[in-house]
Amino acid sequence: MAKESFAERFDPAVAEGFLKANERLTGLPRYLGVRIVDVGPGTLAAEMEVTPELLTPFGNIHGGVLSALSDHVLGCVCYPLMRRGQWAATTEFKINLLAPVSRGTIRAEATVASLSRTLAVVRIEIQNEGRLAGLAQGTVTIRDPKPS
Amino acid sequence: MAKESFAERFDPAVAEGFLKANERLTGLPRYLGVRIVDVGPGTLAAEMEVTPELLTPFGNIHGGVLSALSDHVLGCVCYPLMRRGQWAATTEFKINLLAPVSRGTIRAEATVASLSRTLAVVRIEIQNEGRLAGLAQGTVTIRDPKPS
Amino acid sequence: MAKESFAERFDPAVAEGFLKANERLTGLPRYLGVRIVDVGPGTLAAEMEVTPELLTPFGNIHGGVLSALSDHVLGCVCYPLMRRGQWAATTEFKINLLAPVSRGTIRAEATVASLSRTLAVVRIEIQNEGRLAGLAQGTVTIRDPKPS
Amino acid sequence: MAKESFAERFDPAVAEGFLKANERLTGLPRYLGVRIVDVGPGTLAAEMEVTPELLTPFGNIHGGVLSALSDHVLGCVCYPLMRRGQWAATTEFKINLLAPVSRGTIRAEATVASLSRTLAVVRIEIQNEGRLAGLAQGTVTIRDPKPS
Repeated sequence: MAKESFAERFDPAVAEGFLKANERLTGLPRYLGVRIVDVGPGTLAAEMEVTPELLTPFGNIHGGVLSALSDHVLGCVCYPLMRRGQWAATTEFKINLLAPVSRGTIRAEATVASLSRTLAVVRIEIQNEGRLAGLAQGTVTIRDPKPS
Repeated sequence: MAKESFAERFDPAVAEGFLKANERLTGLPRYLGVRIVDVGPGTLAAEMEVTPELLTPFGNIHGGVLSALSDHVLGCVCYPLMRRGQWAATTEFKINLLAPVSRGTIRAEATVASLSRTLAVVRIEIQNEGRLAGLAQGTVTIRDPKPS
Repeated sequence: MAKESFAERFDPAVAEGFLKANERLTGLPRYLGVRIVDVGPGTLAAEMEVTPELLTPFGNIHGGVLSALSDHVLGCVCYPLMRRGQWAATTEFKINLLAPVSRGTIRAEATVASLSRTLAVVRIEIQNEGRLAGLAQGTVTIRDPKPS
Repeated sequence: MAKESFAERFDPAVAEGFLKANERLTGLPRYLGVRIVDVGPGTLAAEMEVTPELLTPFGNIHGGVLSALSDHVLGCVCYPLMRRGQWAATTEFKINLLAPVSRGTIRAEATVASLSRTLAVVRIEIQNEGRLAGLAQGTVTIRDPKPS
């Protein structure tokens, strides 16, 4: 699907819902303090702070934090392009961790590279303190609502 | 490196230390409740429970949980094969999520497939409720201690 | 899908067809000299010889050879488990190259780890001269025949 | 490493050598007809034609072609940033195949995202007939020349 058509499929109400949902996060995203800060047609940015709680005894953030953050934005970026009732499931992703993270804000930017009826391929860039901290690429399966 | 030699390099004291450290976990592994339950030469198993806290509003565990768990065992399985003072950093990994997880125990088994002086390649199988829930494969960089 | 049921879905005639097709390969598999040597329910093994033609000026096989071989077995292992008329398309895969390959026979063994109606996840081990030379993991999309 | 410094490390003579070497390719790159057409500081573009020889019986190019092409540019893009005598070995990569390819020119663009003393992380975009056909991300190990 051409990127041009992302604009046509984009549902601003869903995007707006993500931004508003930051106050009532649950589970892992709440533990990490993930805030979705920007949503566009095929793009989404999320940020979180590096707190002492998230550091390992070596003084760096646990690698699982960046992979969990990647998994989170991988699915979220697809929703505003999907029909109401559909849901997105991470099929797989791959992440490279590029630099130790020990303080400041982590920002993950997800971009939909390809979108078919049932699959989306997404790329993610993770920035921290002015440098690239991670790169991910993954596949999301888009499922239709179960008939009730 | 042939798997036979894992036995020669295996440091049982380091393995024992992992098992004892379960009570004083910090950060993300503590939030997830990850317990390392078995450590051998080139193998490591960890378990965690699916708690209501970890479920998304859809009733399934957040995909980030399985990816964080994978990242955790990816590094841990290498330590008993490394020299004291060296440390393991996840360079990259890839995970396939195979089935929704909504209850019971999650068990991740990591196996070192290849080990050179500076790189280890590890495979991970994640089981839940009698079925395969995830498969991961990743690369760990082994670093020498910084000269003091 | 449980591995037990691979046996039920396995179509021995399709498997037999693969073994017979080795003599009339075309394109890249023919250039590489790939021979499918064993096919079972959810498993497939292929072999090829390291010829001087395939070595780089550094004396090792080009990494593209092992990745092309992986892509080949990734799809092939699925066919005997699919319905007639369906076809398998590689959605993605990841490969770790573990050791330089410079002579002898290369053997790739593919195993289906998970199979749903539309997706298969496959793991591949590549052996050369008695050691592990590569490990891959990938996702195959299974498509229904187009209505005519 | 910041992208700015790629320019400082860039060796135009090595880049020039790649462009001139297209006439004397060997092995798999020659079989595929890969031409390196553009080399910059941390970037490299290669092209090849879809010939009938490379199509499968289904009329599409074999997935192994795009993965072999990715592996090729993954290593090549690093050389102009390396010291003379060093060599680049693909450690691992992941590729998503996004669209069937059946005619025209295939163009792969590789970009170095991260470069340390021993590891480079590279992203690749593959275009065909005006659309995105593949996306890859991989890790290259940079090795020093063996002492003679």
